[in-house]
Amino acid sequence: MAQIGFIGLGRMGGNMVARIKRDSDHDVVAFDFDRAAVAKAVKAGAVGATSLADLVKKLEPPRTVWIMVPAGDPTQQTVDKLAEIMVKDDTIVDGGNSKWTDDKQRAGILRKQGINYVDVGTSGGIWGLEVGYCMMVGGPNRAVKRLAPFLDVLAPATTDFGPGWGHMGPVGAGHYVKMVHNGIEYGMMQAYAEGFGLFDASEYELDNAKIANLWMNGSVVRSWLCELAARAFEQEGNELAGLQPFVAESGEGRWTVDEAVEKKVPLPVIAASLFSRYSSQARGDFQAKVNAALRAQFGGHPVNRAAGD
Amino acid sequence: MAQIGFIGLGRMGGNMVARIKRDSDHDVVAFDFDRAAVAKAVKAGAVGATSLADLVKKLEPPRTVWIMVPAGDPTQQTVDKLAEIMVKDDTIVDGGNSKWTDDKQRAGILRKQGINYVDVGTSGGIWGLEVGYCMMVGGPNRAVKRLAPFLDVLAPATTDFGPGWGHMGPVGAGHYVKMVHNGIEYGMMQAYAEGFGLFDASEYELDNAKIANLWMNGSVVRSWLCELAARAFEQEGNELAGLQPFVAESGEGRWTVDEAVEKKVPLPVIAASLFSRYSSQARGDFQAKVNAALRAQFGGHPVNRAAGD
Amino acid sequence: MAQIGFIGLGRMGGNMVARIKRDSDHDVVAFDFDRAAVAKAVKAGAVGATSLADLVKKLEPPRTVWIMVPAGDPTQQTVDKLAEIMVKDDTIVDGGNSKWTDDKQRAGILRKQGINYVDVGTSGGIWGLEVGYCMMVGGPNRAVKRLAPFLDVLAPATTDFGPGWGHMGPVGAGHYVKMVHNGIEYGMMQAYAEGFGLFDASEYELDNAKIANLWMNGSVVRSWLCELAARAFEQEGNELAGLQPFVAESGEGRWTVDEAVEKKVPLPVIAASLFSRYSSQARGDFQAKVNAALRAQFGGHPVNRAAGD
Amino acid sequence: MAQIGFIGLGRMGGNMVARIKRDSDHDVVAFDFDRAAVAKAVKAGAVGATSLADLVKKLEPPRTVWIMVPAGDPTQQTVDKLAEIMVKDDTIVDGGNSKWTDDKQRAGILRKQGINYVDVGTSGGIWGLEVGYCMMVGGPNRAVKRLAPFLDVLAPATTDFGPGWGHMGPVGAGHYVKMVHNGIEYGMMQAYAEGFGLFDASEYELDNAKIANLWMNGSVVRSWLCELAARAFEQEGNELAGLQPFVAESGEGRWTVDEAVEKKVPLPVIAASLFSRYSSQARGDFQAKVNAALRAQFGGHPVNRAAGD
Repeated sequence: MAQIGFIGLGRMGGNMVARIKRDSDHDVVAFDFDRAAVAKAVKAGAVGATSLADLVKKLEPPRTVWIMVPAGDPTQQTVDKLAEIMVKDDTIVDGGNSKWTDDKQRAGILRKQGINYVDVGTSGGIWGLEVGYCMMVGGPNRAVKRLAPFLDVLAPATTDFGPGWGHMGPVGAGHYVKMVHNGIEYGMMQAYAEGFGLFDASEYELDNAKIANLWMNGSVVRSWLCELAARAFEQEGNELAGLQPFVAESGEGRWTVDEAVEKKVPLPVIAASLFSRYSSQARGDFQAKVNAALRAQFGGHPVNRAAGD
Repeated sequence: MAQIGFIGLGRMGGNMVARIKRDSDHDVVAFDFDRAAVAKAVKAGAVGATSLADLVKKLEPPRTVWIMVPAGDPTQQTVDKLAEIMVKDDTIVDGGNSKWTDDKQRAGILRKQGINYVDVGTSGGIWGLEVGYCMMVGGPNRAVKRLAPFLDVLAPATTDFGPGWGHMGPVGAGHYVKMVHNGIEYGMMQAYAEGFGLFDASEYELDNAKIANLWMNGSVVRSWLCELAARAFEQEGNELAGLQPFVAESGEGRWTVDEAVEKKVPLPVIAASLFSRYSSQARGDFQAKVNAALRAQFGGHPVNRAAGD
Repeated sequence: MAQIGFIGLGRMGGNMVARIKRDSDHDVVAFDFDRAAVAKAVKAGAVGATSLADLVKKLEPPRTVWIMVPAGDPTQQTVDKLAEIMVKDDTIVDGGNSKWTDDKQRAGILRKQGINYVDVGTSGGIWGLEVGYCMMVGGPNRAVKRLAPFLDVLAPATTDFGPGWGHMGPVGAGHYVKMVHNGIEYGMMQAYAEGFGLFDASEYELDNAKIANLWMNGSVVRSWLCELAARAFEQEGNELAGLQPFVAESGEGRWTVDEAVEKKVPLPVIAASLFSRYSSQARGDFQAKVNAALRAQFGGHPVNRAAGD
Repeated sequence: MAQIGFIGLGRMGGNMVARIKRDSDHDVVAFDFDRAAVAKAVKAGAVGATSLADLVKKLEPPRTVWIMVPAGDPTQQTVDKLAEIMVKDDTIVDGGNSKWTDDKQRAGILRKQGINYVDVGTSGGIWGLEVGYCMMVGGPNRAVKRLAPFLDVLAPATTDFGPGWGHMGPVGAGHYVKMVHNGIEYGMMQAYAEGFGLFDASEYELDNAKIANLWMNGSVVRSWLCELAARAFEQEGNELAGLQPFVAESGEGRWTVDEAVEKKVPLPVIAASLFSRYSSQARGDFQAKVNAALRAQFGGHPVNRAAGD
């Protein structure tokens, strides 16, 4: 039996607390600015806290506090506040989507106080509560070891391939591996998207759900994303008629491309995937206008004028 | 119990015959120009044939003959010869990697004789004998129905996602779906390759096999290719030091890009994957020389001279 | 003084006839199904013809007939009809945008009759009448030599870099070089488009016309396209507000990518340029829907529903 | 007549001093750690300085000092040292290839001392001495105005398109426009490289120099780079046999991609150009090994083993 503090009880953090309490006898002290979220965690078996200070007070040293709030300012501010009230040998865990370079900076500052910093990159989305998460962990050995009992519950082995979490290396390594994971994810998604896009343009009338399901049997492209594609076509229909052709993106895909540019690694597929998302957001429209304008200049090619022009 | 003829008993065809005889009581008449391959099939339970004519003679009408020889000329020649000795209501099955447009052309010619043509795109590689193949089938309903007992053995349901084979549409649809499948495969492979390539260039010392195994647990990128990546790193080492950076490609990837260009579908990821393979084959070297020469021209930038220059 | 027949008096063909009559004393016999176009050519100094047969009759053997009609069926039909009424040692010139493989096929057929075939790829668009065309020529030496007096007028040296036309090689070589020229053109246009697109998204308020004009002075990117960009921004405004973000494409860009795929040459920039045009035509929308659907599946990410959904 | 200090008398800085002294009666005080470079500048008519302090002492306030040293640390250290000895209303000009965000940071610090900072992005390479440079300028109006007499000499109008330098906007705008300029340059170079690469793989035997020269006459792709391509093929031969297929890159191309990722602008062509350069440096080799290893896993495809394996 071990004890942990949890800050941030949204979709991801809330599910994690629920999973820990459901599948182990570990103690969890939980805090969120949203009192309803705390109440829900308490109902799941956690001890509620009314503030960061209260949470820290309710944990026995050496403490481990897991932050599960949005990356960027919210995470940074939480780390800064915890740094004021936590002490030597305590551990702060960032389970969100922070940039690995931020991890390194934070850890460097906390190290002066003797506070450990562990970064955990998490994949699995909303399915983690049910099937377990995949967790990529970076940080000092001792702190990771102390965290292990919780990682064993959150990210158990779900296959024959070993545990669902792994210690990737020193601080930042967890979020680094997760970042690249997401870059790969972008590339895989776009590969499927292009394939189904070609089916849509084909002279054959193809049944996308049937194909995705078929591919789950022994084909080289069988994967969880393929399974989700089958499900999506079943739910949304062969034409995905109810959806808008707009794809959002988050930091990790961008950071992966940045890191490749920095490390001089060619990354054509992942970059193209990111750019396709940008294009879907109409962010390539000015470029298209430039091309159209140039064609009009040299060829007298007709251009599609904007309405009213 | 049903009966089929098999022409081409190489790695793929030989395994298929073995699987049919192992898992069903169907009759197989088998032919290959390589007598040892025929002998092996006979040992597996097939009836051997000494020529195409002998094979056709040993089948009861309406016949079904499965061709499993290299795409292009070998397949075309086999189809042409069979057309001379097969008759109305017989069926020729092309289980190789033919181009879907070739299927349409062949089927059109055979249709005049009343001979059916079925195209089967097969995925699963050398693993099919053990775990079953994934088969994408195109052609007329009646002929596909007659082929079904064999498809049920070669490509059974291996998951909860339904059978391992599917009737995709009229002639060519099977190879069309398989072609796009391979395009997606190229994209997925390159996505993983870029990710592990970034790990290799990273400031962290990462364990690629450990990561690939980890990702098999609940991550968004879990897939059969991810499983194979884990295995490859385990077998070849973290640096893949024994391998050359040379990637071959086959027709299907090229045809996918051609079809996208024809149908005006943007295919950046799959095309980039194909081009990366070409680059690995040093086919972009002249381009690099042009770039280097231009840099030297405008900037007086030093160029790497070829040895002896 | 030499004599030539011209078939197809549209924007390009009409200008060419006008240029020949304006700048030389060569004879031109001109035909178009549009009588007004013929009348205009007659006014420019040409002899009008009322049919293909009439045109051929009005030329002295060995005849040279220049076809300037849309590529594909119109050109093929014209070639076929001319083949019936032209004779040994005559020459058919295809000055349109035919595919080089079509040239080879046509030339092979005409060769049996002893009729020469010359392919001319033309660049310069509507500016050719004024500043001269750039003409890439393929075909047998003797026929090209006979055509030279006209090429000298249509495509004179406009710079210190030698003549404006060149004999590139045997049949098809002219259209081949022109095809690749257009591929390069796509890549250059997209490079500028991306640059100005970045300016548009920049935190600086930049004056695109000023920049394009500035670059014409001594910069590495000075070019005719840069000059046209300056003009386009001057005419259409810094935001190109009156234009639609829609870019058309023609056969040559597509054929360039096909040829690269066939010859196994990586062509990432030219292919990306083509795909960007397809995207501007909303041909990547289905792909974007697939990506959005997958995101929704694994992450519970919100999707933009189509209106009314 | 105006006065300026020049720090850094290498290929670029030395030529600039020479051009100023050759084409105007402006005073130049010149410094470099390399005494021979100073001596050369003195011979060209400049006043030599023995140290930064000496240079500053020899200038009358308000001073303008142009730094032309490598970007990064050398430039930063020079700025820092000058900041110690220059005073209110003086101006520091960075004419090198600094990142625009560094400009903003430096200017912010110098502003507190009342020192102006002007960034000048320069294109034209080694040709600038002869034909004039193209200069993109950012910074406060008053300081740019004071610099104008020198810009007029370094970057005069060389065409009908207006002057060879332009004030692009506030601090950083000069290097920003230059950065994007270089991104476009990468894309254009790669477009030509792909085209000539296709010629090289073509079934035709094409004369690259002849084609590049031909295109300078009226074609859509005529440009300075096309001219340089003609020259390169003339000098190096049709096969560029003496060159290595290795293309270097500098910061600006990388920063352009980073900025696009940050601003969410799709940049497929410029990114692909950068990645092609990385590939030419063998930085995609690990990826190729991963692809080869995966192919071997699923297909039993043969891999090219490293020698001795």
